[in-house]
Amino acid sequence: MIVGLIQMACQRDPQHNMDHAVSMVETAARQGAHLICLPELFRSRYFCQSENPAWFDLAESLPGPSTNVFGEIAKRYRVAIVVPIFERRAPGLYHNTVAVLNESGAIAGVYRKMHIPDDPGYYEKFYFTPGDLGFQAVETQQAMVGPLICWDQWFPEAARLTALQGADILVYPTAIGWHPSEKSQERARQREAWMTVQRAHAIANGVFVAAVNRVGVETLDDDQSSSLEFWGSSFVCDPFGQMLGQCSDEKTETLLVDLDLRRIEIVRRHWPFMRDRRIDAYDGLTRRWLDHRSSH
Amino acid sequence: MIVGLIQMACQRDPQHNMDHAVSMVETAARQGAHLICLPELFRSRYFCQSENPAWFDLAESLPGPSTNVFGEIAKRYRVAIVVPIFERRAPGLYHNTVAVLNESGAIAGVYRKMHIPDDPGYYEKFYFTPGDLGFQAVETQQAMVGPLICWDQWFPEAARLTALQGADILVYPTAIGWHPSEKSQERARQREAWMTVQRAHAIANGVFVAAVNRVGVETLDDDQSSSLEFWGSSFVCDPFGQMLGQCSDEKTETLLVDLDLRRIEIVRRHWPFMRDRRIDAYDGLTRRWLDHRSSH
Repeated sequence: MIVGLIQMACQRDPQHNMDHAVSMVETAARQGAHLICLPELFRSRYFCQSENPAWFDLAESLPGPSTNVFGEIAKRYRVAIVVPIFERRAPGLYHNTVAVLNESGAIAGVYRKMHIPDDPGYYEKFYFTPGDLGFQAVETQQAMVGPLICWDQWFPEAARLTALQGADILVYPTAIGWHPSEKSQERARQREAWMTVQRAHAIANGVFVAAVNRVGVETLDDDQSSSLEFWGSSFVCDPFGQMLGQCSDEKTETLLVDLDLRRIEIVRRHWPFMRDRRIDAYDGLTRRWLDHRSSH
Repeated sequence: MIVGLIQMACQRDPQHNMDHAVSMVETAARQGAHLICLPELFRSRYFCQSENPAWFDLAESLPGPSTNVFGEIAKRYRVAIVVPIFERRAPGLYHNTVAVLNESGAIAGVYRKMHIPDDPGYYEKFYFTPGDLGFQAVETQQAMVGPLICWDQWFPEAARLTALQGADILVYPTAIGWHPSEKSQERARQREAWMTVQRAHAIANGVFVAAVNRVGVETLDDDQSSSLEFWGSSFVCDPFGQMLGQCSDEKTETLLVDLDLRRIEIVRRHWPFMRDRRIDAYDGLTRRWLDHRSSH
């Protein structure tokens, strides 16, 4: 199976971004991709740099414009597509969502971002209600696709619960970058941690992992003091955590990687972690904190 | 806090190994270590290469000889020590165990290996009953110590449950190596995966991680056809997953690393994963597998 990652820069005009994404997805499909993944919230700049109710205007319904456009492409090229959507579910109720379109162009699965960040420059708790659909693996013709989104990357629980549903590949549409004030050593450390934690999900679960980030420096009109430099570096790794391909940290790129899904069975036979999980002893994972002494 | 890792080769004679370990631990203590960690089952060669009931003779009681010897050292040097023990709990009931001795020489905590491997050359399910004490963080004067053992390394659940109890550092006494038949590329991949998955535990949980492995080639007398080459590479990494120090893959070494435990608070403030865990949605982690369609 060939997976195609669309690493792109996002401009002010949503229509421009949509046209650009369509063009890149069509090209990847023509080049033979079976599963194509777009970056998180690709239709707009990363508006969560500030809290501004006007940005809710960017949201769309599901099904809606994005699933219509990419549904047509999925059907025409017989390709599965992971389409991030700023979802307007009801007035005042919005989610950071991914629709997985299958090769017939149908919405085969919907995932709403479960872990919502909130720190300087990433004010997502203002915009996005935490997901209420749980973790999922979505059946497509070529593979079981496990959609997750950005901040989910840091939570081993999300990867595990998606893998336990039979996902062959975890796909993380992402918008992560550096603050301008951060020094190069700090930047390298952050990017390295970001890759390491996701490679570990591949290893611990015996699955492929794909991360799809945007690139470019974005400054919001309403807050010139703040900007983010998205670090790209989109990648695919195998169930051993080995890098199969990685994009640059600043260029618009399409990364096509050929995956041998039989590797999953082979790797898990040699490192049978699924066999040995101590499910009798994991109850504490549903607790916020296990306060010392009082927890037993 | 200075942590000291004792990377050693293990010989046939348990008394020789004990004397060697004592000497190395005393040296590390004199050099200023506050917490010293020995490798898994350091008193003997790695007997799990074959299934032989005679090897149960190597087991000892707890408290017992090892905790007595190292308890004296802990008290004399005012140092905490992580002491792996092949524990004989009752006739026919054995565990792969770690005793955490505090600076008074007392047994401050006991951890019994929860995840037991079993694959060619590592027939541990024959010898060790899976642990029944759950995951723990043990209070010592300098730090909360989270004892885990070898195969536990591959399970994010073990790291998380230990961190949720307030562990500042996860300590993994280990016995992991290569089969002679494995090629160098495969060896590099395995060792890299081993490091990556543990560095990710540090990142995902905002804790320090220490892994303490043995070195050397060991061939069991009763099965000359089989041998293992233990890959050493003992290391300490910080809550960002950055390597603070690492041993070679073949030499007996003591690694001393100075940890600034205040880093934990700093890193977690910037990447507040503990805040955002979706404990309402993690029930499935106590299931073996989430069979598609039937799981909701």
